[in-house]
Amino acid sequence: MDKLGYLGPHGTFSEQAAVLWSCGKYELKEYPTIASAIKAVDNKDIDLCIVPIENSLNGSVTATLDMLAFECDVYITEEYILKITQNFLVKPGTKKSDIKTIMSHPQALGQCVKLLEAEFCTTDIRAVNSTALAAKTVHESDGTIAAIAPESAAKMYGLEIMYPECNDDKSNCTRFAIISKTRNMTVTGKDKSSVVFSAEHKPGALYNAIGLLGNEKINLLKIESRPMKDGLGNYAFFIDIEGNIDDAKIYFALDKVKTHSLFYKFLGSYPYK
Amino acid sequence: MDKLGYLGPHGTFSEQAAVLWSCGKYELKEYPTIASAIKAVDNKDIDLCIVPIENSLNGSVTATLDMLAFECDVYITEEYILKITQNFLVKPGTKKSDIKTIMSHPQALGQCVKLLEAEFCTTDIRAVNSTALAAKTVHESDGTIAAIAPESAAKMYGLEIMYPECNDDKSNCTRFAIISKTRNMTVTGKDKSSVVFSAEHKPGALYNAIGLLGNEKINLLKIESRPMKDGLGNYAFFIDIEGNIDDAKIYFALDKVKTHSLFYKFLGSYPYK
Repeated sequence: MDKLGYLGPHGTFSEQAAVLWSCGKYELKEYPTIASAIKAVDNKDIDLCIVPIENSLNGSVTATLDMLAFECDVYITEEYILKITQNFLVKPGTKKSDIKTIMSHPQALGQCVKLLEAEFCTTDIRAVNSTALAAKTVHESDGTIAAIAPESAAKMYGLEIMYPECNDDKSNCTRFAIISKTRNMTVTGKDKSSVVFSAEHKPGALYNAIGLLGNEKINLLKIESRPMKDGLGNYAFFIDIEGNIDDAKIYFALDKVKTHSLFYKFLGSYPYK
Repeated sequence: MDKLGYLGPHGTFSEQAAVLWSCGKYELKEYPTIASAIKAVDNKDIDLCIVPIENSLNGSVTATLDMLAFECDVYITEEYILKITQNFLVKPGTKKSDIKTIMSHPQALGQCVKLLEAEFCTTDIRAVNSTALAAKTVHESDGTIAAIAPESAAKMYGLEIMYPECNDDKSNCTRFAIISKTRNMTVTGKDKSSVVFSAEHKPGALYNAIGLLGNEKINLLKIESRPMKDGLGNYAFFIDIEGNIDDAKIYFALDKVKTHSLFYKFLGSYPYK
């Protein structure tokens, strides 16, 4: 059975996504960080991993983008969208005034800013590696800690929901990427392609690169910048465009982008939701 | 004396930036979060604040971008660039094997990923509100906690530097924005302008918006996307362009971008470094 990695521990949204996407067809393997799950695919320890790439409230998952661009040689082969509902969890019987610390994954904290600012603006906020770890810590605590985590974590650790569905917006969802060492070669007719590149250091270089796609009437679905980590003002651009690299129009347009880039990496063509 | 807000507590890089930028001409006022410092300007409690907007290793400070775009009615009037050197701090006499927890601000943790992954991949990493708070916590701890913070925090809390200059890249610097309730009306001849907008929901809309600037040979310095927080796939784009809004070419090009946007906000023209 092929192995699928995900960000643990037990109870994370990544685990939910792994279970729902894989439908029992993969042996699931838990990793402590997103970086370690992607590295395990790169090193061929496992066949695939499923990692969060973007949340509708909090934006890109920069740890995932940086691994894909700079640290590994892997491809996105599919995407999966999971609806996210965060809950504010406490030990049973805890009063609001008892809470001294609130813990969660940084992405989850970023999804519940309104509640945190309105009700807990002076409370100590601590980011931990996962929502499940936060819930586990509340379970083991003396009742002065609260966690932001999925409902499943409340059941798992016997916690009480003080504020249900506490994310800022109810349309909250996370897009996961399925990562593999090899490209997805299937063409479905409704595909998108992802690349990352850094434009040359001269005026208009970014506009020209995007223009190479615009001239061919290729639809730009998303653009995200990340620093190249070699000084202010040098960026890598992550671009999602409509179409498959096996389409000649896409192939030649991306090839031109590559020619005009200081750094370029094709991250895969895959069906989009 | 006018009041300048910044992210405290005592010992943060924001405090360093506030001290160096203001040269004693402002009364400094500390705030617990970036959001509260910007809100204080919006509410006219203080005259200005200085907040981090971008780091050369870790990218945009999303808390600052989201406040400027969605929560407040304020302008960027100036920028200030501070060289950042992170240090790995412990209580004097602590051995590496004693360390159970590492604390810092999320941005600082993101700047020292290589050290954390190479030496502390199984250690509990905790994000706190500031580097100075992390150093203070180490000072008050039993020697099992380490902090990533500036050298000044080591002096302030009597800590030992276990790994000096531990950021991933030595060219590490942070760009701060000075925020005011009113526009900077000065034209220096070497200015940039910042706007945030969301393109219409139709194919090619983003490319067209950027094209409105490209057609006028306006140089695009930076583009960053943030979710509109109303579902996946809807983004606000933060754009920095060369030139001042008082230049007719810039004024009319931005006016066209505004006309073609669902959401648009001018964030200021100001000299760039």
